[in-house]
Amino acid sequence: MKRLKRIHELLVDIYGCKSNLDDAEFLVAVLEEAAQKMGSTVVKTICHKFSPTGSTVILILAETHMSIHTWPEYKYAALDIFVCSEEIDPEVGWRIVRVALKPTSFKTSKLVRKIE
Amino acid sequence: MKRLKRIHELLVDIYGCKSNLDDAEFLVAVLEEAAQKMGSTVVKTICHKFSPTGSTVILILAETHMSIHTWPEYKYAALDIFVCSEEIDPEVGWRIVRVALKPTSFKTSKLVRKIE
Repeated sequence: MKRLKRIHELLVDIYGCKSNLDDAEFLVAVLEEAAQKMGSTVVKTICHKFSPTGSTVILILAETHMSIHTWPEYKYAALDIFVCSEEIDPEVGWRIVRVALKPTSFKTSKLVRKIE
Repeated sequence: MKRLKRIHELLVDIYGCKSNLDDAEFLVAVLEEAAQKMGSTVVKTICHKFSPTGSTVILILAETHMSIHTWPEYKYAALDIFVCSEEIDPEVGWRIVRVALKPTSFKTSKLVRKIE
């Protein structure tokens, strides 16, 4: 894992999504594009589709992880972008997700975690 | 995914760990025990060992996810427990992790995210 003494975590509640939140392949493509545009390295992609509805996609990154959980019946998605590199801006990834999911509103929270 | 209109997220910075944070199999066992004791359902377990050091373990739960990232050279681990069920208390999982990792100190943050 890349080394840095701080971890930046961006958590976004995404409301009123007009895109199909039940399409797990679409969500994988969106997160992989977000990771690429941030300049991060995807180590593993994990996807799980729940029954009857809802998906979870998690990317393990060389710089920690990104995850999205969706509740299509509420048009809601919970996004976390968790990076331990000063060169990577989680906002860049979030912009890609925002364009793809077409929400009516959202709420972001930021946390900085100190490794030492 | 189980349905609830709130998500509870517990984030813990864990310092001065006396256990071996480079032992990915140990970390998987700790997180799986924590999930079980919380009463959550593990859907998938994902583990990645970084070179030369550091591990990431993520459990996809029926109630969202748990993740741990470790930096053994700093004796530091970042734990997230993210649950969307009123019956599951993330503190129960954190207690299992705390006993296993033997930290000298820690810092917890809690977030509640509204689905609607």
